[in-house]
Amino acid sequence: MFLDSALREAYESITTATITTILLKKGLRNVALRGPKPLRTWGRLVGPAFTLRFVPAREDLATPASWSSPTSTRGAIEDMPEGVIAVVDAMGVQDAGIFGDILCARMAKRGVTALVTDGALRDIEGVEGTNLPVWCSGVAAPPSVAGLTFVGWQQPVACGGVAVFPDDLMICDRDGAVVVPQALIEEVAELGLEQERLEGWIMKEVQNGAKLPGLYPINDENRARYEAETKKGG
Amino acid sequence: MFLDSALREAYESITTATITTILLKKGLRNVALRGPKPLRTWGRLVGPAFTLRFVPAREDLATPASWSSPTSTRGAIEDMPEGVIAVVDAMGVQDAGIFGDILCARMAKRGVTALVTDGALRDIEGVEGTNLPVWCSGVAAPPSVAGLTFVGWQQPVACGGVAVFPDDLMICDRDGAVVVPQALIEEVAELGLEQERLEGWIMKEVQNGAKLPGLYPINDENRARYEAETKKGG
Amino acid sequence: MFLDSALREAYESITTATITTILLKKGLRNVALRGPKPLRTWGRLVGPAFTLRFVPAREDLATPASWSSPTSTRGAIEDMPEGVIAVVDAMGVQDAGIFGDILCARMAKRGVTALVTDGALRDIEGVEGTNLPVWCSGVAAPPSVAGLTFVGWQQPVACGGVAVFPDDLMICDRDGAVVVPQALIEEVAELGLEQERLEGWIMKEVQNGAKLPGLYPINDENRARYEAETKKGG
Amino acid sequence: MFLDSALREAYESITTATITTILLKKGLRNVALRGPKPLRTWGRLVGPAFTLRFVPAREDLATPASWSSPTSTRGAIEDMPEGVIAVVDAMGVQDAGIFGDILCARMAKRGVTALVTDGALRDIEGVEGTNLPVWCSGVAAPPSVAGLTFVGWQQPVACGGVAVFPDDLMICDRDGAVVVPQALIEEVAELGLEQERLEGWIMKEVQNGAKLPGLYPINDENRARYEAETKKGG
Amino acid sequence: MFLDSALREAYESITTATITTILLKKGLRNVALRGPKPLRTWGRLVGPAFTLRFVPAREDLATPASWSSPTSTRGAIEDMPEGVIAVVDAMGVQDAGIFGDILCARMAKRGVTALVTDGALRDIEGVEGTNLPVWCSGVAAPPSVAGLTFVGWQQPVACGGVAVFPDDLMICDRDGAVVVPQALIEEVAELGLEQERLEGWIMKEVQNGAKLPGLYPINDENRARYEAETKKGG
Amino acid sequence: MFLDSALREAYESITTATITTILLKKGLRNVALRGPKPLRTWGRLVGPAFTLRFVPAREDLATPASWSSPTSTRGAIEDMPEGVIAVVDAMGVQDAGIFGDILCARMAKRGVTALVTDGALRDIEGVEGTNLPVWCSGVAAPPSVAGLTFVGWQQPVACGGVAVFPDDLMICDRDGAVVVPQALIEEVAELGLEQERLEGWIMKEVQNGAKLPGLYPINDENRARYEAETKKGG
Repeated sequence: MFLDSALREAYESITTATITTILLKKGLRNVALRGPKPLRTWGRLVGPAFTLRFVPAREDLATPASWSSPTSTRGAIEDMPEGVIAVVDAMGVQDAGIFGDILCARMAKRGVTALVTDGALRDIEGVEGTNLPVWCSGVAAPPSVAGLTFVGWQQPVACGGVAVFPDDLMICDRDGAVVVPQALIEEVAELGLEQERLEGWIMKEVQNGAKLPGLYPINDENRARYEAETKKGG
Repeated sequence: MFLDSALREAYESITTATITTILLKKGLRNVALRGPKPLRTWGRLVGPAFTLRFVPAREDLATPASWSSPTSTRGAIEDMPEGVIAVVDAMGVQDAGIFGDILCARMAKRGVTALVTDGALRDIEGVEGTNLPVWCSGVAAPPSVAGLTFVGWQQPVACGGVAVFPDDLMICDRDGAVVVPQALIEEVAELGLEQERLEGWIMKEVQNGAKLPGLYPINDENRARYEAETKKGG
Repeated sequence: MFLDSALREAYESITTATITTILLKKGLRNVALRGPKPLRTWGRLVGPAFTLRFVPAREDLATPASWSSPTSTRGAIEDMPEGVIAVVDAMGVQDAGIFGDILCARMAKRGVTALVTDGALRDIEGVEGTNLPVWCSGVAAPPSVAGLTFVGWQQPVACGGVAVFPDDLMICDRDGAVVVPQALIEEVAELGLEQERLEGWIMKEVQNGAKLPGLYPINDENRARYEAETKKGG
Repeated sequence: MFLDSALREAYESITTATITTILLKKGLRNVALRGPKPLRTWGRLVGPAFTLRFVPAREDLATPASWSSPTSTRGAIEDMPEGVIAVVDAMGVQDAGIFGDILCARMAKRGVTALVTDGALRDIEGVEGTNLPVWCSGVAAPPSVAGLTFVGWQQPVACGGVAVFPDDLMICDRDGAVVVPQALIEEVAELGLEQERLEGWIMKEVQNGAKLPGLYPINDENRARYEAETKKGG
Repeated sequence: MFLDSALREAYESITTATITTILLKKGLRNVALRGPKPLRTWGRLVGPAFTLRFVPAREDLATPASWSSPTSTRGAIEDMPEGVIAVVDAMGVQDAGIFGDILCARMAKRGVTALVTDGALRDIEGVEGTNLPVWCSGVAAPPSVAGLTFVGWQQPVACGGVAVFPDDLMICDRDGAVVVPQALIEEVAELGLEQERLEGWIMKEVQNGAKLPGLYPINDENRARYEAETKKGG
Repeated sequence: MFLDSALREAYESITTATITTILLKKGLRNVALRGPKPLRTWGRLVGPAFTLRFVPAREDLATPASWSSPTSTRGAIEDMPEGVIAVVDAMGVQDAGIFGDILCARMAKRGVTALVTDGALRDIEGVEGTNLPVWCSGVAAPPSVAGLTFVGWQQPVACGGVAVFPDDLMICDRDGAVVVPQALIEEVAELGLEQERLEGWIMKEVQNGAKLPGLYPINDENRARYEAETKKGG
């Protein structure tokens, strides 16, 4: 999927809080991944989902030797286009780190925008050194094979209790990571920009001492005022 | 996968407790599914795994309308050969039933040996009426689409925290469901039969008042006695 | 709330599985209580919700002495009309039993239809002796005051992760307990009866060897056949 | 510890529900084990605690070979006096069975009254065949060494979130298993017998249609009536 | 409730660790909320509890439209007196944020001392911008209506497994949030001040190399020394 | 146990991520404690384990008075040799803090290298003031006796789901805390140093743009190159 720069810019100014409100109004209540949080502050990052999938470890499969099999995380990483957000289904396992510094360094080299997982990272100091933006659920020393077997990429996955399909849009900020289904990407961008504009105006009102009822959510009278003022301002 | 009748018969006499002990001795510690328990008593059932996979529900995908899509549970069921054990990865979700009476009735009609899932069944009274043997983790009224989206079949899956691949062997009894990796099916059958024979002899000794140390695990002296007696007996 | 006998009879023939499917089609995905299961088999029971609410124990409040305060479970029970289903929000606490044999005996005397809770019962043998139908999440010896403080009745409550309001309709069967919002009681009854009729016909088709695609969910051709046959039959 | 037959008989007539109420009045709120439930119905069983302790498995320690070490579960079992209740701290692990049929058979032979654990049993069909009464938290096929390392017996343990010391008294019934600290055994027996007598009288009143307030808990007027009647009766 | 400035000042110098120790000595073991932690460092904050209560979302109730109903979080906020600590029972739900930047800005404007919840906040960057002190259990992008329905304020609530009543006293610091029942506010302040004085003296002794036994807890000899020295110093 | 300075220095340069990979290759998959994370950054700390063990609180045992019993945490602390890492089995309880500032100050005075626990600390601001390095699972105001009873030291313990024996080696860094069984301490040091050297070389290759397959894990060709270059360099 190609994400044009206007869309990317739009999404960079819409909070994940606003995106989830808009999707909820369209009937989608399960779009915010449970678990992944940013390791540190990177602002808001946007990109199409590139999915990876693990199943539980089985000692005959999940071995250091498996790392050189063709269905390996290494193969998946070499397949990642620039600008994607890697979304890794680790079934929420917190006892093993899916990737450490070397794999993250390679992802950064390839221009991957961010890594999102409901699992843990390992060698966290090394990972931070790579400057790859990471939204994860924890940190654990053991290698992935201690708890996980890698089975493939670019399939539908479960990540943090949310379904993610390849080429859905991922948006990640301080609140976490949310997914916008591919078919709704343009519509949500439009509605989101308008919503941010409105909430900015409401926030100014609150800071001037306005009461909440009638203001948020906005009633007809206040909406007229908002439209008048923002037209003037715009 | 075809399971010949000698192997099937062998496994029907080996407890899942014995199978897990044997696999542990070969270094496999994660082969017993966490969650699935038998709805009622059916003895021990054996068959190759036929896998199904769900991801979480997303309201634009998990709808009653999706039930007639080509990638539907209906399509998967019509693809199941006689004698398989269906293993359904429901990510442990207990809020929605993966199947109800109608789907189970069709599976029974097709000669499916058993249904194993880390999720829940629904319309449990109707399901019991179909006589399909079921190992599941719970019972829930809501339809699968309330919590789950079906994404495919005969892929590697996670079920109850264990990796299951198509054509691994499933064995289900009162203790739950365990998987034997395809490459080990013959060897585990042999070792299992011998182990059951030995444990039967030990149990008789215990019932005659023997102490455990030296007997279980067996020391050289007792093993000699066991071999003498069972040779005699055999 | 008064539940007329036609409605009660209708609901007694609609499974909770069917009710949740119908509510899902109307956009309500969170109506099946997580946790409460029947202690034994009582068929399907129906009645308006009469709610009770606990908060966690605080040793200065949750004492045996509190049992004689006016805001006590005793007071709530004496306030229950005949035919209601008591729905008790115990916040899922499994370490203390909300009621034992004496309170259940009094509820049975008063003609309460059933008791539903996301908590535990205590003195379970005595409770069974009272013949009060119970859907609960567990069994625990300690008295309620070991973990819970009673704070009132006929308020909105959370039970098993579902919102229940006084006079919503509760339906309880083998799959668990579900709630129908008061405003939808009549409509769901109608839709439910029709759905049960259709599924009965589909089940017969499956038992005659029909394949699932086109049948369930039903396509136009099969629906025509269904309508023809059931008109004949009706 | 020796439990005289009068005490044993007394406790056999006091429910665990009543025991926890009495201990609560004495300030002990954490005496009912979370998890252990009876495999089937055995009435109420009573005996001094004989404790066993596991820590998590480490592959260099928890091996089938370890079963013949001097610090083994086998050694512990051969050390159990007749009439004790074995209380096994398995840290709530549900992925491995602490004991199977052979060890339970030996415990039954030695006259052990019951086995209580916050872990799981394995080979459950075989265990049932031994007729050893078991209160456990689940059933799992894998051997203990798949998840647990045995480290000793007759030490203080945690079982189901409750502290149990050797020679505390265990009482097990349908509601689960509770512990009475050694120093309180006689006092709790006395108070418990009286409480059961009172609750029996209250239950009769309820069955005759009495209201709860004033009756349960009992007020002065009703207590006078109770004492008059039971004196008469006694 | 009015909290006079001497009491407020006293509590600002007593750690929540000391408060829980004192309440434990008075038999109250369940006064520290599980979950709420400070978003950043604000020192110790003190104020009477102003409670809010949510139940789970039901799609017919928890809608953006509900935000303008009279029983809305907006109404509750406009009802908060200056100096209170808002305590929000979100049943521990981590999938939806109870409040975002606009509502927090309004609370800050109204002089609310702090916000405490066992749920999550949303739009966390915006919330930080309002400078409202927040103790919460997580961060989540979705709006409250994605998981919660607001049902009222100034009722008894459960927050983080602890009962909180309107006008109990809340104290929040780095260790979390604790509640002092209204009847004990004065007594705990006195005992707490004395305890802090004693522990300060003990800490100095430890830093001078004193051993713990006899010192902490303090024996008679050391107490005499403490009293002598602090009298001198005081 | 005495840890010589060469070994200590070696381990200070080996990440816990590398240690767990090496132990996994030797068949040990359960050596990383689940839960304990560093309160702040201290680099990597190494020392022999000195174990402490708690069981759940029972109100007759876990009292402030118990703090002066001979089997008290105070006694255990006075028994700790310089340079050890205290490993405290708190059964993962997060509702009570095992130690506060005074006990941590005494441990720092005695030259304890670090404190590791699957439980919580209390009075966290005070604890930070002592400069004792702490790996814990949380922060809680209540004293240990609110949830825990201390039962002894230098016994085998469970900490974060891992078995730890006295004199095993503990290594703690940003990823958490791991244990090396006593018998493997020398071997793991050697293998670890070599592994760190190899991974350093691989990382440089990645930063120069090398692809992962063939590099990590390393194939024969790359290993030859590595050996040539590092020999040169060494």
